Amino acid sequence: MSVPQQRVRVSLGPRSYDIEIEEGNLERTGEFVASRIKVSHAVVITDEHVEEPHGRRVAESLAEHAAADLVVVPAGEPSKSVATAAALWEKLLQLGTDRKSVVVAVGGGVIGDLAGFVAATFARGIPFFQVPTSLLAQVDSSVGGKVGINLPEAKNMVGAFLQPQGVLIDTATLETLPEREYRSGLGEVVKYGVILDADFFAYLETNVAGLLDRHPEVLSFTIARCCRLKADIVEQDEREETGLRAVLNYGHTFGHAFEALAGYGELLHGEAVAIGMDCAARLACRLGRVGPEFVQRQRRLLAALGLSTQGPLLEPDQVLRTMMHDKKVAHGRLRFVLPSRMGAVDLVGDVSPEAVRDALADTSF
Amino acid sequence: MSVPQQRVRVSLGPRSYDIEIEEGNLERTGEFVASRIKVSHAVVITDEHVEEPHGRRVAESLAEHAAADLVVVPAGEPSKSVATAAALWEKLLQLGTDRKSVVVAVGGGVIGDLAGFVAATFARGIPFFQVPTSLLAQVDSSVGGKVGINLPEAKNMVGAFLQPQGVLIDTATLETLPEREYRSGLGEVVKYGVILDADFFAYLETNVAGLLDRHPEVLSFTIARCCRLKADIVEQDEREETGLRAVLNYGHTFGHAFEALAGYGELLHGEAVAIGMDCAARLACRLGRVGPEFVQRQRRLLAALGLSTQGPLLEPDQVLRTMMHDKKVAHGRLRFVLPSRMGAVDLVGDVSPEAVRDALADTSF
Repeated sequence: MSVPQQRVRVSLGPRSYDIEIEEGNLERTGEFVASRIKVSHAVVITDEHVEEPHGRRVAESLAEHAAADLVVVPAGEPSKSVATAAALWEKLLQLGTDRKSVVVAVGGGVIGDLAGFVAATFARGIPFFQVPTSLLAQVDSSVGGKVGINLPEAKNMVGAFLQPQGVLIDTATLETLPEREYRSGLGEVVKYGVILDADFFAYLETNVAGLLDRHPEVLSFTIARCCRLKADIVEQDEREETGLRAVLNYGHTFGHAFEALAGYGELLHGEAVAIGMDCAARLACRLGRVGPEFVQRQRRLLAALGLSTQGPLLEPDQVLRTMMHDKKVAHGRLRFVLPSRMGAVDLVGDVSPEAVRDALADTSF
Repeated sequence: MSVPQQRVRVSLGPRSYDIEIEEGNLERTGEFVASRIKVSHAVVITDEHVEEPHGRRVAESLAEHAAADLVVVPAGEPSKSVATAAALWEKLLQLGTDRKSVVVAVGGGVIGDLAGFVAATFARGIPFFQVPTSLLAQVDSSVGGKVGINLPEAKNMVGAFLQPQGVLIDTATLETLPEREYRSGLGEVVKYGVILDADFFAYLETNVAGLLDRHPEVLSFTIARCCRLKADIVEQDEREETGLRAVLNYGHTFGHAFEALAGYGELLHGEAVAIGMDCAARLACRLGRVGPEFVQRQRRLLAALGLSTQGPLLEPDQVLRTMMHDKKVAHGRLRFVLPSRMGAVDLVGDVSPEAVRDALADTSF
């Protein structure tokens, strides 16, 4: 079966790069990189879970075009640390890395963020390619240029904006993704439809079976559409300066609160976003921005994709307090990204705490 | 006595910033910063040697316009480390720093590089101002946007390109600079004349007394001219991509070798550069690019400013081997920035090891 290649071009000022999406792309990594920059040395950074077979396969493909090293870090969020970044800087130095080398990140969001930060800072910046292997990384963290690490008390507190030279996505890497992690990624996928593209939302509704089966053609189209939608936003607000990029946080203010209160790691990111989107839709309904059918339609698609919109049992006041502490709540004023219709959202300021509490408590849908 | 303010405008693509040079400028820091950017919170980063009175004075000036914190790190090169950067990231977080805050570096090159790197990476980059207090930092590291830290085995290996929002130079800070450190800075000053501006070299020859006396007017003009000359280069090659920026390394390939062989810290940077410039001039003479009077003229000015051109007693072969290991020697080919006449240099590739050895051994001037 042949699935056509999807390509998304991201243009940022004078620079642009391609995201190419196709089943079997990993084998093409060397060619993809070598056709874009002169490369004599490539360092593949991956984690223990992705090393076999994806990391190894990418390194082998690169080895046909350049000296290729494979560096493996422990899997999981704790690797997004100063200590791991420092270990990688030392490792790059030992491997003779210089500005003619290239870093290739193979893995999920943690690896992309970590390897990107190391590439952005080693020798004041060396070229960087991404080969995201989780659905969430493919539709989210591979577009936008945000790279970074965590401090013990604050996620993503240290980092940079670094646009990659190219992103290569192989839908076959999703075949082996654990079911729960895959579905979590679908939470972000649905988000793009809700905030930016009613037609895409309808496409997702029509293709629930293909999505659940991880059908290559459905995946290629879906990932490409998400990347295009996110790129449209990032192209207009690369460094998060105009506020436009905030629309991508739909569901995230509520979601982060649930994530934190459930204990980090209990809810996967996309699961928390799904719960948060349902809260945001209920709030939009309460504020008269959308009707109840909007809440129901969004909830129906999420449920069909295996995503619960029922958060952990928490007091509305507890969720509210946690959100007030979230960094996105400037000066104690609550701001939310809220829909006005399918495919369109606004940044709504000065929402009253009462409306939020009521929306959280609302079980009428 | 009133010395007119000198201003240098550095333009980099769509962005530009000012370097303002005037005796007594420290007291104006708050106004300087507040007139350029909306600031509610400023973090002054300085070291133990500079804290009193300069760091404190800058913080007090800023406190008239914003909440101001003063953070002090140990003086000296060891602070340009991952550990100190990590401690500063944590400190900024504790102080409630966000993208509306500003980092102000008050000190020499170490503080500028370290604080700049922290500003470039905290919250993916927050605004950054520089108040350099050593002559070397004023004429060199405050222009160019290179910020960074060292790895144990490699200087400046981790960093970023970050252009400041503004640079404020107070010539009065040089009054208390130790004599040896001040003269070391003059080594870099002379370099700018040799590589880019024969008239400026002649100005320095005419104003040796004013330079040695640290006369405010001579200092203001000299610092402004050096900043302008460096800015002219950096504006054309911000990220060290075209090779143009390499001319700034005149004297540095030899100088780094002497610095390393003498044991780091034995020779100050500008002292090593002075020795290196003499070697480079001898090499240019040997290659027929300049006559012996060029070597003598450069040496005479350096000597008048108290800078020895006599390196530590080393075997030419030892110096040569060390240079071959320097990162600037690409693929074992020796490249040097060499003068063709006063105020003009070229990047000269494929210099034979014999010519270098002979120039090092040459005592005929």
